[in-house]
Amino acid sequence: MEVYVYRDLGKPFNEWFDWVIREAELYDYGRYPAKGMGIWLPYGFKLRKNVIELIRKLLDSTGHEEILLPLLIPYNIIIKESEHIRGFEGQLYWVTHGGYEQLDIKLALRPTSETSLSYMEALWIKSYKQLPKKFYQVGSIFRYETKATRPLLRVREVTTFKEAHTVHEDFKDCERQVKEAMDIYSRFFNELGVPYVVSKRPEWDKFAGAIYTIAFDTLLPDGKALQIGTVHNLGQNFSRVFEVRIQRKDESIDYAWQTSYGISERIIASIVAVHGDSKGLVLPFKVAPIQVIIIPIPAGSDEEKKAVMEHAIKLKNDLISRGLRAETDLREDVTPGEKFYIWELKGVPLRIDLGPRELRGGYVTVVRRDSGEKIEVKVSELPEILKKLGEEVDSELSKRAWEAFRKKIRRVNDLNQAKDYLSKERGIIEIPWCGRSECALKASEILEADALGTPLDEVPNVGNEHCPICGERAVTIMRYAKKY
Amino acid sequence: MEVYVYRDLGKPFNEWFDWVIREAELYDYGRYPAKGMGIWLPYGFKLRKNVIELIRKLLDSTGHEEILLPLLIPYNIIIKESEHIRGFEGQLYWVTHGGYEQLDIKLALRPTSETSLSYMEALWIKSYKQLPKKFYQVGSIFRYETKATRPLLRVREVTTFKEAHTVHEDFKDCERQVKEAMDIYSRFFNELGVPYVVSKRPEWDKFAGAIYTIAFDTLLPDGKALQIGTVHNLGQNFSRVFEVRIQRKDESIDYAWQTSYGISERIIASIVAVHGDSKGLVLPFKVAPIQVIIIPIPAGSDEEKKAVMEHAIKLKNDLISRGLRAETDLREDVTPGEKFYIWELKGVPLRIDLGPRELRGGYVTVVRRDSGEKIEVKVSELPEILKKLGEEVDSELSKRAWEAFRKKIRRVNDLNQAKDYLSKERGIIEIPWCGRSECALKASEILEADALGTPLDEVPNVGNEHCPICGERAVTIMRYAKKY
Repeated sequence: MEVYVYRDLGKPFNEWFDWVIREAELYDYGRYPAKGMGIWLPYGFKLRKNVIELIRKLLDSTGHEEILLPLLIPYNIIIKESEHIRGFEGQLYWVTHGGYEQLDIKLALRPTSETSLSYMEALWIKSYKQLPKKFYQVGSIFRYETKATRPLLRVREVTTFKEAHTVHEDFKDCERQVKEAMDIYSRFFNELGVPYVVSKRPEWDKFAGAIYTIAFDTLLPDGKALQIGTVHNLGQNFSRVFEVRIQRKDESIDYAWQTSYGISERIIASIVAVHGDSKGLVLPFKVAPIQVIIIPIPAGSDEEKKAVMEHAIKLKNDLISRGLRAETDLREDVTPGEKFYIWELKGVPLRIDLGPRELRGGYVTVVRRDSGEKIEVKVSELPEILKKLGEEVDSELSKRAWEAFRKKIRRVNDLNQAKDYLSKERGIIEIPWCGRSECALKASEILEADALGTPLDEVPNVGNEHCPICGERAVTIMRYAKKY
Repeated sequence: MEVYVYRDLGKPFNEWFDWVIREAELYDYGRYPAKGMGIWLPYGFKLRKNVIELIRKLLDSTGHEEILLPLLIPYNIIIKESEHIRGFEGQLYWVTHGGYEQLDIKLALRPTSETSLSYMEALWIKSYKQLPKKFYQVGSIFRYETKATRPLLRVREVTTFKEAHTVHEDFKDCERQVKEAMDIYSRFFNELGVPYVVSKRPEWDKFAGAIYTIAFDTLLPDGKALQIGTVHNLGQNFSRVFEVRIQRKDESIDYAWQTSYGISERIIASIVAVHGDSKGLVLPFKVAPIQVIIIPIPAGSDEEKKAVMEHAIKLKNDLISRGLRAETDLREDVTPGEKFYIWELKGVPLRIDLGPRELRGGYVTVVRRDSGEKIEVKVSELPEILKKLGEEVDSELSKRAWEAFRKKIRRVNDLNQAKDYLSKERGIIEIPWCGRSECALKASEILEADALGTPLDEVPNVGNEHCPICGERAVTIMRYAKKY
């Protein structure tokens, strides 16, 4: 067992993760004959769809409009913003041929869409009256990763990239938008029970082309930090090179101000990693493809057996008509025990065991996936109680995950102690910082960990502490972790 | 005015189509700096989403499972089925470089997914017990079109390709699946009021790698035939080269049998083209992004004006809570007349004009986009009546479109008459056929038109007629049209 795994998964995290992704039939990875690309299987696709719908609702209700941009970005467009291309050029896939011809201008598979969208915004946006403008899209992006790839965590085709792009009249409104984006992402992660810490990334780790980057990091069960969302204030960096000009209220002409923010299928990896246990997935009720699985347990006479099967179907249909995602497993060549195993592995939040005894009594046994708790429920009260139990499951998952997460964030003043924590238990270490890049880079080297960045809020009493590198008074803390 | 346009669009069809796509803000085309690729704008994106949801429902309810395959297909996989690659190789985009490196094996942007999916099915499917298996996906495909491109009609990035792929135990079950697919597509096109004719494509025009292809064609207002859906019986052509082997009921091992069928964003082009008029889009109620637009017509005192505005918002919210997609246009710098123009252009099926008179009387005027008819409705009865009117709109649009379509299908025995029709009015011409390819190809040449194929049902009394090329007794009819 790895020393850092802070939850019992029955096996080392990496092994467990590959096992659960494969056995729960979420995503077929490592067998497709192009590296870093996988297939969303039906069960995984449904989970992905529910997660996407959740973020769509949050974005739609805050005035974001969904669009779809081309996947291919011509060379001369993607190279326009110099910082941006410096950050991405090592990762781009290039289309060089169409049919039997070489293309005049090679086309990049988009790694993100700041450049192609800014090109169009120069045509669309003319006046402050159209602002703020908030676009988003959900689609595939490509990054030619040279590091070892992992399903959902580090892939070459990110099939679920939700990128938002906004346009504003001034810097102040960009700042407001950054806050709105952070609020939306916080609500999104909270709904999924995925804990996070929000940091302002250090200068050397911001998005290529941004003024600054805010990032959400969670922790994997092996104590490594995983970036699950970023928000960038782009200032006028892109609008200037793409000439996105607006007339302001005072009739002056200025370049527009922009932000962008993104999340990827890493959020699905996080749901898997943060809530799962040694038996497999544990899915939040809110996004589970199947919320309630009904297992018929036939016994007694043939007639009684038949009645159980019929009742299972009827109950499923009743629950579906009451707005629940219910399913029943009627297979006759699989034992109830095997069915328990399979649906636990697939993380279905609630299970109903249905036998002749239950039929006669007019009640059923509901089993919670998260706690194993068994609850006897009157059939007539079932839909309401299942919904209530679903909410309880989600709140319990969230509580559990946050508790474990908070324990892995440690504030220390001493580098040796920090190094000890990071090597033995990992997690996130917060160390007083003087604000100078060279000190954070030095500490990062000593700790053999990445600097995640600084908190956005003021840190109480940090002025009494000292940077362990240079000894100067601290102005904030810097967070360090082994980054995935 | 073009002679062939069979509906008054106010301008030639090509010009009208580009105008309406652009002005109704569906899809930004021709300005993105890579040829054949456009941007789905917010309004168009919503229409597209509603159309996709409609086909999803039909597929989900018939046991199809949605998946997502990689966009990139390695060279050695896509070339495996020889007929298939012969059909597609002139149209493939190739990714040859990743980062600073040349790839060992070049990757094709998928033109369709028979090859990549069959590769995976060889790993997934082992036994007849798993069959029939029905997969589908919705995503972008790429075709390096060398013909002139047109928005939604002929593009290089088809962003809305719904492809279904099924696996079966034997040929007979493939045949059953072909019928199911035809039934699903018929229902889909019927729901959208898009008329079609179903033909078995001639040998020389079937899908590359199929045993045979069934196609759905509609007619554009300029009388050209537009292929909007295809269904392919693939037999064992792909399963053999990808070694998708199954154990049959009798325990023998056989290659699996497959079908595939697809529709694209051409269905959205068809909705636009088939229902639109000189004022712009006319959208079916079922898929319209906005079903009901409320136009406040403020008049009288400031207080009365304010009351109208407030009432418009209240009414919008009421209608939304009753499950209608309602919107109101509160802009103060745009006159009601201008608003009528804009929302007619955008094809909103129902409009509510709301002034002080309406407020006082407790009733409103509902205007139908399809007919211009005005209906006075009591506010209390509004939600129910709007839904009923919506259904009436859809059934009227369908009726109108089918009537016009049927008039453009002509059965003739004489080639000169056929040629005359095709050059003057276009449409679809049905001619008795002996069944020999050379006669159809000859007729096609003479008519300067494409052979669409033969009807699937027997043609009554065709045995008394003769092939106008060879003079032999006819066995069926062949359909010809100028194909888009």
